[in-house]
Amino acid sequence: MPTVNRQWKLAARPKGLITPDVLQLVESPIPAIQDGEAFGRVKYLSIDPTMRAWMADVKQYLAPVQIGEVMRSSGLAEIVESRHPEFKKGDKVIGLTGLQDFVVIAGKERGYFQKVPSIPFVSDASFLGIFGINGLTAYFGMMDIAKPKSGETLVVSAAAGATGSIAGQIGKIHGCRVVGIAGSDEKCKWVKEDLGFDAAINYKQHDWKEQLAAATPKGVDIDFENVGGPIMQAVLDRMNLHGRVVLCGLISGYTKEDPALASFAQVLIKRLRVEGFIIIDYVSRFMDAGKQLGMWKTMGKIKDRQTIVKGLEKAPEAINMLFKGENIGKLIVEL
Amino acid sequence: MPTVNRQWKLAARPKGLITPDVLQLVESPIPAIQDGEAFGRVKYLSIDPTMRAWMADVKQYLAPVQIGEVMRSSGLAEIVESRHPEFKKGDKVIGLTGLQDFVVIAGKERGYFQKVPSIPFVSDASFLGIFGINGLTAYFGMMDIAKPKSGETLVVSAAAGATGSIAGQIGKIHGCRVVGIAGSDEKCKWVKEDLGFDAAINYKQHDWKEQLAAATPKGVDIDFENVGGPIMQAVLDRMNLHGRVVLCGLISGYTKEDPALASFAQVLIKRLRVEGFIIIDYVSRFMDAGKQLGMWKTMGKIKDRQTIVKGLEKAPEAINMLFKGENIGKLIVEL
Repeated sequence: MPTVNRQWKLAARPKGLITPDVLQLVESPIPAIQDGEAFGRVKYLSIDPTMRAWMADVKQYLAPVQIGEVMRSSGLAEIVESRHPEFKKGDKVIGLTGLQDFVVIAGKERGYFQKVPSIPFVSDASFLGIFGINGLTAYFGMMDIAKPKSGETLVVSAAAGATGSIAGQIGKIHGCRVVGIAGSDEKCKWVKEDLGFDAAINYKQHDWKEQLAAATPKGVDIDFENVGGPIMQAVLDRMNLHGRVVLCGLISGYTKEDPALASFAQVLIKRLRVEGFIIIDYVSRFMDAGKQLGMWKTMGKIKDRQTIVKGLEKAPEAINMLFKGENIGKLIVEL
Repeated sequence: MPTVNRQWKLAARPKGLITPDVLQLVESPIPAIQDGEAFGRVKYLSIDPTMRAWMADVKQYLAPVQIGEVMRSSGLAEIVESRHPEFKKGDKVIGLTGLQDFVVIAGKERGYFQKVPSIPFVSDASFLGIFGINGLTAYFGMMDIAKPKSGETLVVSAAAGATGSIAGQIGKIHGCRVVGIAGSDEKCKWVKEDLGFDAAINYKQHDWKEQLAAATPKGVDIDFENVGGPIMQAVLDRMNLHGRVVLCGLISGYTKEDPALASFAQVLIKRLRVEGFIIIDYVSRFMDAGKQLGMWKTMGKIKDRQTIVKGLEKAPEAINMLFKGENIGKLIVEL
């Protein structure tokens, strides 16, 4: 049994990006586990935009992380010792590991941990991306809220991100014209050439709004929105009457004191339906969604990609990579 | 037959409120009517926030009024001469009269004109308010989009306005706790004491947000939103998980170059459903809705009120009254 656990603890609330004073790497002793507990070695950390929101002291869908607490994150761990009835040594589990080397799984909620199966040709890390929060988020956002119909036009922002890339591919499966918005030519090339999007637009080009208009000649029926602010505004301006906005994320606002604002005027004029959703409302249906995603993946209809950063000590930098747009696909820290 | 028609024509696009250069009162000759046309004397003009939007040269749900055209408005007219198969002399009709003394009803769309019935104890003017656009808007917004359930909390902004006052009363009929937001103590008194709202909050008081919190101890399930901007933001902050926002108007933004902005963050975090709607989508169901409103009115479950301004020459001032919050209930210009 290891005796020391390295943990990133929240030391100060961030303003903007994560600065060195925000997270502190500390070494903590590892207590002996009790009956009903399990002890896991963290193998992969899932780096997600929502982590930045968890650091802010504002009301949100989970309690904010408190100063002095281990920074919350999802991750994949391997059980190394267990006195828990549902987990045994060698099991691989995903859940809220936190940014640390080792996690104790305890209590009633036990960090939402669930076992992941061993499936040929499926990597462990993919249970954090396509078969994890991102794939499931894309699945329920598209299938339950967007309900895409063949011939409709879907725009996905943060299209090369872990969720957006899958949402767009689900749109293609359902016969939509799919247009991605991303922040680099490399990302645009990936979603267009490898993932089969019909068009991809780099919003850092000065004429990107004209490109968006040209790529959506019949307007936009579905906005799978991950970004918010001016990018969302530009898509709202292209929406058709009675279009749907799947509000999945507002990443452009997460590092700002002033959240990214936008006008609701188009929602009114175009009679749009805007629905916010968060994946924790769909836990009971994860298994069915996972099977469908697995089938699409096996059939080659959905491709995924990871950006891997090595070493727990790099976790704070990795979080910043999300907001600087430096990842393509799922961003993971490998321990 | 009269030979001269006074008409308010759009002379310049407004910035902010209506200034004297925006609308010009001109006298035009009245042409003889042709086969298929009818000619009406305008009795009442409906003064609505949407008129300010029609004056702006931006894409919207109807084409903007062009410079030189008669300013568009709803109104009630009495047919004085007809060569139209559906209208005869003496009929009262509502539709897009425009700001003028006389209207020619012509063409295929014929300004959406419909005959209104003569009903004992129902004034002609009420076909512009409770039995007109405002009552119908409140009806479909509440019944089709909000779908109120007993015990839920409904907040209505512009609660003393023609639409908000009826929306709130429909909420009461369905067993909701109803909280109104309005801009004067007199308006608050009316919606609370006469209309039976559970609480009414004057947003011009410095502690109005605290009052809103106190008046919504179980949070807010439905926002019937007429205002937008900071008022909408404060209501969004009080929304419960999976609440509904009926986006009926954004009046706080109509007189501004910069539309009233708000954050979509609460929509995401609280998984809200925001739906814009405009009454023109419900034309085929007007008759049924009107019957229900009539029944509620007859049973004393819905009360209405009018603010009457006399004289066509006062129409531009009347429009400004809306944005200065000077009307209670339906604002009408009587000719």
